[in-house]
Amino acid sequence: MRRKVPFAVLLLSMLMDLLVPSSLLCLALHDLLQVAAFPDPAAGSLHKDAAFPIVKANTTALVESKDGTISVASAFAGHHEAVQDRDHKFLSKAVEEAYRGVECGDGGPFGAVVVRNDEIVVGCHNMVLKDTDPTAHAEVTAIREACKKLGKIELDDCEIYASCEPCPMCFGAIHLSRIKRLVYGAKAEAAIAIGFDDFIADALRGTGFYQKAHLEIKQADGNGAIIAEQIFEKTKEKFQMY
Amino acid sequence: MRRKVPFAVLLLSMLMDLLVPSSLLCLALHDLLQVAAFPDPAAGSLHKDAAFPIVKANTTALVESKDGTISVASAFAGHHEAVQDRDHKFLSKAVEEAYRGVECGDGGPFGAVVVRNDEIVVGCHNMVLKDTDPTAHAEVTAIREACKKLGKIELDDCEIYASCEPCPMCFGAIHLSRIKRLVYGAKAEAAIAIGFDDFIADALRGTGFYQKAHLEIKQADGNGAIIAEQIFEKTKEKFQMY
Repeated sequence: MRRKVPFAVLLLSMLMDLLVPSSLLCLALHDLLQVAAFPDPAAGSLHKDAAFPIVKANTTALVESKDGTISVASAFAGHHEAVQDRDHKFLSKAVEEAYRGVECGDGGPFGAVVVRNDEIVVGCHNMVLKDTDPTAHAEVTAIREACKKLGKIELDDCEIYASCEPCPMCFGAIHLSRIKRLVYGAKAEAAIAIGFDDFIADALRGTGFYQKAHLEIKQADGNGAIIAEQIFEKTKEKFQMY
Repeated sequence: MRRKVPFAVLLLSMLMDLLVPSSLLCLALHDLLQVAAFPDPAAGSLHKDAAFPIVKANTTALVESKDGTISVASAFAGHHEAVQDRDHKFLSKAVEEAYRGVECGDGGPFGAVVVRNDEIVVGCHNMVLKDTDPTAHAEVTAIREACKKLGKIELDDCEIYASCEPCPMCFGAIHLSRIKRLVYGAKAEAAIAIGFDDFIADALRGTGFYQKAHLEIKQADGNGAIIAEQIFEKTKEKFQMY
C-alpha cells in the first residue's frame, strides 16, 4: 500500500539519509517511532497487535498513526547493513554459548545473550542437565541472570538474542521481563528435526499445540475455585504490583 | 451422547463400584485408561488433543477408542467426592502459599504445590520481588524446587496444584517438566481484574494475545540464521537428549 506523502516529508527523509547514518541514532529514532521498518522482507516481522500499520517505500518507512497522520521513519542508507552487522555480532555470541553449553555438558545446544546499550549484560546457555532444572533454558537463564546483574525485574531497555526461536516458556519469560526486542537465529523446526519438543514452534506463531493429551487439566470444583479467587480481593492492597 | 453398552461391561462397572472404592486404585485405573471422566461438568476439562473422545453416563465414564471399541472407566460411587476432597486439600495448600507470599513481601499472591504419591513434594509462592526475577512465578519456582528435591528433570509422576490458572511461561514449564496433572483454583480473569498481565489467560485457551506490540521480533538476516541452524547438526551426537 503506497500513500501520497508530502514533499517536505520526503525531503526530510532524504536529508536524514545523508546526514545521520549513525546506527545508534537510527535505533533511537526507531524507538521513538515504535516501529521496526526494514527494507529486507525477511527482517522485522512485526506483531499482529502492532499499534501502527507500516507502509514500505524502498529504504524509507512511512508510519501511519491511528489518526491518519503520516510520519517518517527513514531506514537510512546503510542503516539496514549496520543493524544487520550489529545483530550478527550479538547473535554470534548466542551461537557460541550454544556450542559452549554442549561442550560443558550443561544441557541442549541453545544460547542467549541479553544486550543493553550495545553492551552484553549476560551470555548464557541451556543449563537443564547441569542444574537438574527443566526451566533452565538459555533465555530464561539469561533473563534471570540479567535481572540479578542489573538489580531490576524489568528489562525494558534490553534486547535478547537467542540462537533458536524461543519456546512458549521462554517467550512468556521474555514478555514478562518486558524486553523490547528479540532476535533469534534458527527456526524451531531445526531443533525439532533433531528430536526437541515440537512445542517450541507454538510461541511465535500463537498456536497452542503444546497442550498435550498427557496432561490432565482441571479447574477446582466448587469451593476450591472460590477460595482461590478470594485471594486477589483480600491481598490487593498488600503487595506491590509489578 | 449415550451409547449402547454390553450388559457384562455395566455389570463389571457396578461390581467395581461396590468392591473398589479406594481413591488410589481409582486413580490407578484413571491413569491406565488415560482419561479424566468425572460426572461434574465443571471438572476434568480434557484437552482438545486428547486421544480418546469421552462419553459420559451418570457416574460411569465410557471411553471409545479410535477403532470404535468401547471400554469402561468407572467413576465409582464416592470416587468423585474422594478426588474432590483430595484436590481441595492440596489446592488449599497452594492458596495458603499465595497468602504467605504476600505476607512475606516476596511477590504477587500466587501459590503452587507439587504432589507425588499423595504427598506434597514442595509448596512455593511467587518470588519475583524477593529474588528480583520475573521468571520466579509460583509454578516455575515449585517445579525447580521439586526437580532439585527429587533429583530429576521429569516430574511425570507428579501433579501440580496452582492457586491461579497458569500463565504461558508457567504452562510451558509444566509441559516441559512432564507433570501429569494440573489442578488450578482461580481463573485468570480474577488476577487480571486487579491489574495482573492479561497474558495469563492465553495459556490454557491456546490463544496468543500476549505477543504484545512493544516487543519487536526478528529472525536474523542471512548468515545469522544459517550458523544458528548448523548448531543442531553439529552437536546432535554430543549431548544427551531430554
